[in-house]
Amino acid sequence: MAIKIYGRLSSANVQKINWFCEYANINVINLNYGGIHGKTQTTEFKDMNPNSRIPVMDDDNFILYESNAILRYLSKKFDILVEEKKEISGKIDQWIDWGSFTFAAPCSLLTAHKLSLPQDQRDELIADKAKNDIFSLLNILNFHLAKQDFIVDEKFSLADIPLGIWCHRCVNLEISFDNFPNINNWYIKLKEMNSFQNTVVSAPLPPN
Amino acid sequence: MAIKIYGRLSSANVQKINWFCEYANINVINLNYGGIHGKTQTTEFKDMNPNSRIPVMDDDNFILYESNAILRYLSKKFDILVEEKKEISGKIDQWIDWGSFTFAAPCSLLTAHKLSLPQDQRDELIADKAKNDIFSLLNILNFHLAKQDFIVDEKFSLADIPLGIWCHRCVNLEISFDNFPNINNWYIKLKEMNSFQNTVVSAPLPPN
Repeated sequence: MAIKIYGRLSSANVQKINWFCEYANINVINLNYGGIHGKTQTTEFKDMNPNSRIPVMDDDNFILYESNAILRYLSKKFDILVEEKKEISGKIDQWIDWGSFTFAAPCSLLTAHKLSLPQDQRDELIADKAKNDIFSLLNILNFHLAKQDFIVDEKFSLADIPLGIWCHRCVNLEISFDNFPNINNWYIKLKEMNSFQNTVVSAPLPPN
Repeated sequence: MAIKIYGRLSSANVQKINWFCEYANINVINLNYGGIHGKTQTTEFKDMNPNSRIPVMDDDNFILYESNAILRYLSKKFDILVEEKKEISGKIDQWIDWGSFTFAAPCSLLTAHKLSLPQDQRDELIADKAKNDIFSLLNILNFHLAKQDFIVDEKFSLADIPLGIWCHRCVNLEISFDNFPNINNWYIKLKEMNSFQNTVVSAPLPPN
């Protein structure tokens, strides 16, 4: 049975799940909710997630929200990208959280003030501050990637997923990796993955 | 060998690890970093965490940051509160992230504007907005706890840890659970745990 994912294709948090499922050959039904599609304030949606946020997963009536919880659940269920070594698993968890919260925060803010908000609510000062924060964090990531080809342990893991998606968002927001050669090398490797092309690169931009 | 935790005892994210370790009988050495103790901008600290943030764990030279990554690592290493059923594990992951990011965000903001920031940088309007956001989220949590005694599956799990700590922070910030009876019943159960008393209730307040 296919996994149902409620959430617009342009959402970075939906893309996490779509990329993983495409990589793992898992059948997904995407339902456009959130952004211009709305429908997250209905009683039916709030019964699934009272926070009115996407993505929400429905796996044969098992409902789950929080994108990284969905990612970890599907990884365990289908036994794909499961890491047994606790030190490596610890580093993967560290970079999933760093990518999804620390790095995502200014990326989300820049997205809002460049793409999602109505024109009259966009603020250039907030966008510039977000861009500066992104550059500081890209410095940390670039330094980290000097030592290795992927985020953790020289091979593709769940840790590459949130960071890969937010770095692609940076590219969409016209942030260049010219000064971050290690990030650029890693990003080129992601772009060579069909699963990344089909779910992230080809996805519409927020709020669509 | 004891686990070294770099981070002031008043930090909610440090308390996650201290509470878990006290619960699991794991020997911890706490080192006061961050807040009034500073020392997070030194080269030595940045070599461990270039983000200059606490907590950082040193387990016999294995360095890890991001508090929930540390929590999951220690849970696996000592085989305490490990959940094998993937649906239950999914729900635990969901509530760890909801508690640590969605709920923690306004709690952190209120802490800053009531406790941590210098008096002349505190903003009553920001504090009031944060308080309103906390009340909305407490409504969601109270509704959830109507159906069960603990956050997930009727027994104490890693999911209770971030939420228990941030709810205790709410109490310290004079937010009452009078209108949230299910949260109150759950919070009373946490307060009956010695491990919670010894690491969370007895801890100093930020920024100490």
